[in-house]
Amino acid sequence: MSVLRITPLGGLGEVGKNLTVYELDDEIVVVDAGLAFPRDEHLGVDLVLPDFSYLRDRAAKVRAVLITHAHEDHVGALPYLMRDVRVPEIWATKLTLGLLQSKLDEHGLLHAADLREAVPEDGAVQIGSFRVEFVRMAHSVPDTVAILLEAGGRRVLHTGDYKLDHTPVDGLRTDVGKLAEIGNRGVDLLLGDSTNAERPGVTGSERLVGEAFRQIIPVREGRVLVASFASNVHRMQQAVDVAVETGRKVCVIGRSMRKNLNIARNLGYLEAPDDTFIRPPELEELAPHEAMILCTGSQGEPMSALTRIAYHDHPAVTLERGDTVILSAKPVPGNELRVHDTINRLAKAGAEVLHQEIAPVHVSGHGNAEEIRTILGLVRPKGVMPVHGEFRMLAAHAKLAQESGVPAGSIVLAENGSVVELDERGPRIVERVETGVTFVDGLGVGDVRDVALRDRRHLSEHGVLIVVATIGANGGRSSGEPELIARGFGETEPLVAEMRSEAAQVLAECLEQDITEIKLLQEHIHDSLAQLVYDRTGRRPMILPVIVEV
Amino acid sequence: MSVLRITPLGGLGEVGKNLTVYELDDEIVVVDAGLAFPRDEHLGVDLVLPDFSYLRDRAAKVRAVLITHAHEDHVGALPYLMRDVRVPEIWATKLTLGLLQSKLDEHGLLHAADLREAVPEDGAVQIGSFRVEFVRMAHSVPDTVAILLEAGGRRVLHTGDYKLDHTPVDGLRTDVGKLAEIGNRGVDLLLGDSTNAERPGVTGSERLVGEAFRQIIPVREGRVLVASFASNVHRMQQAVDVAVETGRKVCVIGRSMRKNLNIARNLGYLEAPDDTFIRPPELEELAPHEAMILCTGSQGEPMSALTRIAYHDHPAVTLERGDTVILSAKPVPGNELRVHDTINRLAKAGAEVLHQEIAPVHVSGHGNAEEIRTILGLVRPKGVMPVHGEFRMLAAHAKLAQESGVPAGSIVLAENGSVVELDERGPRIVERVETGVTFVDGLGVGDVRDVALRDRRHLSEHGVLIVVATIGANGGRSSGEPELIARGFGETEPLVAEMRSEAAQVLAECLEQDITEIKLLQEHIHDSLAQLVYDRTGRRPMILPVIVEV
Repeated sequence: MSVLRITPLGGLGEVGKNLTVYELDDEIVVVDAGLAFPRDEHLGVDLVLPDFSYLRDRAAKVRAVLITHAHEDHVGALPYLMRDVRVPEIWATKLTLGLLQSKLDEHGLLHAADLREAVPEDGAVQIGSFRVEFVRMAHSVPDTVAILLEAGGRRVLHTGDYKLDHTPVDGLRTDVGKLAEIGNRGVDLLLGDSTNAERPGVTGSERLVGEAFRQIIPVREGRVLVASFASNVHRMQQAVDVAVETGRKVCVIGRSMRKNLNIARNLGYLEAPDDTFIRPPELEELAPHEAMILCTGSQGEPMSALTRIAYHDHPAVTLERGDTVILSAKPVPGNELRVHDTINRLAKAGAEVLHQEIAPVHVSGHGNAEEIRTILGLVRPKGVMPVHGEFRMLAAHAKLAQESGVPAGSIVLAENGSVVELDERGPRIVERVETGVTFVDGLGVGDVRDVALRDRRHLSEHGVLIVVATIGANGGRSSGEPELIARGFGETEPLVAEMRSEAAQVLAECLEQDITEIKLLQEHIHDSLAQLVYDRTGRRPMILPVIVEV
Repeated sequence: MSVLRITPLGGLGEVGKNLTVYELDDEIVVVDAGLAFPRDEHLGVDLVLPDFSYLRDRAAKVRAVLITHAHEDHVGALPYLMRDVRVPEIWATKLTLGLLQSKLDEHGLLHAADLREAVPEDGAVQIGSFRVEFVRMAHSVPDTVAILLEAGGRRVLHTGDYKLDHTPVDGLRTDVGKLAEIGNRGVDLLLGDSTNAERPGVTGSERLVGEAFRQIIPVREGRVLVASFASNVHRMQQAVDVAVETGRKVCVIGRSMRKNLNIARNLGYLEAPDDTFIRPPELEELAPHEAMILCTGSQGEPMSALTRIAYHDHPAVTLERGDTVILSAKPVPGNELRVHDTINRLAKAGAEVLHQEIAPVHVSGHGNAEEIRTILGLVRPKGVMPVHGEFRMLAAHAKLAQESGVPAGSIVLAENGSVVELDERGPRIVERVETGVTFVDGLGVGDVRDVALRDRRHLSEHGVLIVVATIGANGGRSSGEPELIARGFGETEPLVAEMRSEAAQVLAECLEQDITEIKLLQEHIHDSLAQLVYDRTGRRPMILPVIVEV
């Protein structure tokens, strides 16, 4: 009998690049195709993608990609996947499709995509052997869904990202009724969001941020800037609502936020009177208390609108004393210092800066432990596979599952590349496939690999020393001192002179001993210079000897 | 009449490298001499020091350095300062001196130091024209003091770091009585800790962490590891107390923590029965529930004890399922990802990890807004100069000062290098002196400067391309293709071939047009390769052309 195989290629042991492969015989359905942002050690890298080899090797099997919601860590890798693998169908809800279309268009891939609208209210769709249903979930971008997959006689619920917001801004709450009904049908395996599994209690409703806006904004006499993620349409809606109520016009700054806002308005996900929005040049004509600015840059991204404003480098917006900046987001781990820098620059410009450490201007989009318990209680899965999170989060989710009554043997702590088979005995890791990461650096996808990053790291530590020495045609000595070029090393004149004469001496000694092979000469020069430099400075620059035969 | 001049050389607009110069005519007293840890952009740098030029230029004036407490950001630069400037006297409390002695010894500077013990209970000491008193303050290292300086008819209180812990572990609470009495005498200027000025309310007492330990540790059946800063003697004391109560022996791992614990015990700052401590090899002989391990590594530092344990790389400690790790510290901004990595590795090893996001196992050493208000109320200063913090923190402190009744004109938002004169009209910034930073990199102090860091950053982004081309003696063409060496670039064979032939062609064209000057040839090759590389890859490696005349 056919066995359902589930292989996460990303999103486990990390927050980012979610991609899970569901495979039954010769059919594959992929849930999400996300990217990750580079960490410090990914020097020079722009984006990090899942390694698609597993899918490339099975390209003919791929029937569809299903997207749970429009965040980059769930959809950002899709254009890159489409370059490698033909994707016959792409399923997502209306807003997700709207945002995705614009992304595919930028990559010149819109023509290649067969986009199908997922409508939770419409019931199941059949994709090859997979029966698929979509379930509304509340999250920090509207139109988020969980996905129920039935194939090979098994039923699997893949939650995507969610929180149990009972008072969401758009009224579209997590569909607990449907989850309970699915639970009644019987779920063999739950793949659930683990992001906040360590955190006790429940995540605050998105509406709390609106309440904070209502407390903060009406009493302000200067301009109000609200910075958030460009996809957080509910956050924008709530800011716009307060602007309308308090007689402020809204100016949207930042390409991605303008684009998303237009798409959301056109598709009916953001409502505001027509005369609410103004263009940046019109800001000048308004008194400070008549203006609200919505912008990107809540993560301190170097080229973002807010960063440019903070550094007095924005053509349309200059901050003044009395203005207020609301940073309506939490720094993604790793971005803290950049965000702090932005706050400091804004404060220096005279603005009062309200951020999540000191004011209730942000809530998470992910459910805490009690919400995960609730989902486990509604769905009553026979097995659980925590996904979407670092190991500590997955482990905390596993603990919640066990406490909820799922037998330990049916809880799978998988990693990227684990192949999980789901049969009548439950889920089991049966093998491990190679998975790594693919770096996007400039125009290149996958050409920068670990060895290049290792070299970048070495170069970044103590720079590079290049020694160019010449030798005569037949291994004879050549006139001329070796040339030395140092970059990023912090060299002093006396040390350069010492290194130069050391290189000359080593070369002369080698030639005297009839050592003329280029590789050997390079090795000797490298080793003696490395020792000299370390003795003098305690540093280990990259040393590159070049021998030119003249 | 003589005017007191106050010049902070570090600690303003940052958290780190605190150093403030107090100057009256031809006498200088320095309060604190701290270092900062490098940020991401300080590639390869080990430590960051204040720029001592201001003090070097006035070396003959320096009478003493007064240290408020034994944290690196207050004392870590002292050995480097002593290399540059003769420091006739160093004043600090007993524990601070004990920890400092060991540091000076490591730098071979102990003989050069005239260490004087500051005893808050003993009243004032006279240092040249400066009358100095020390005031007990509670903080996350014992024996912390504020410093009252009187000179030129002015009275200045420099708080150092503090919190208003009314139940400190050692019973030595912030001496609010003395602060009030000093307030009665009249304080012209308060230089106060701003770290937590943005945070409402009060910081929890250190004792809360002990209560958490008492709830967590007794019920554990495996080993318990507690990781904290090596200087947090109170934290260690509380962990040791619970160990003794629950029949666990304590093994201290990590050089700095062992050293500090010994100093603290010898000086009477940490109390425990003699048979409490065991050596690492003895751990094997104990059942898991009989052992507690105290270690460093709460910041995920790569070479620390906890990191080595997490990565299964410690000779004496291997974690097992059922063990508990308490991370009793908060990640310093910028260290979050490293700390998360450590937590994930520990969780993977089977340990339950309790950290400050999910359990009350840490409190800050700095007072929040209400504590700052209390200090302002006790001292009732005529003027306030917020110190110790990023700009946003200084600004929040200034706001608190204004709310407490200090006139706006007497609140000084200074920066590193601001020279503040304090006369009968109050404090005023009168000039700005050059201040920068000095990098310690390996053995070098100050030889790595911005240009080297800029080069390191460039190299770290996209690596380096070296092109070695030869030309004939009189500007003639030379046989042989240019040689190309790429590191950290992510090159492909076809691109290397294309670059090589581009370089050859540019060289040939130049020589044809009688362009033979080396600098010009380098420029042409550089520019055309940079363009080619950018067109093909979107990257901007550092390109270094070397022309060898043969």
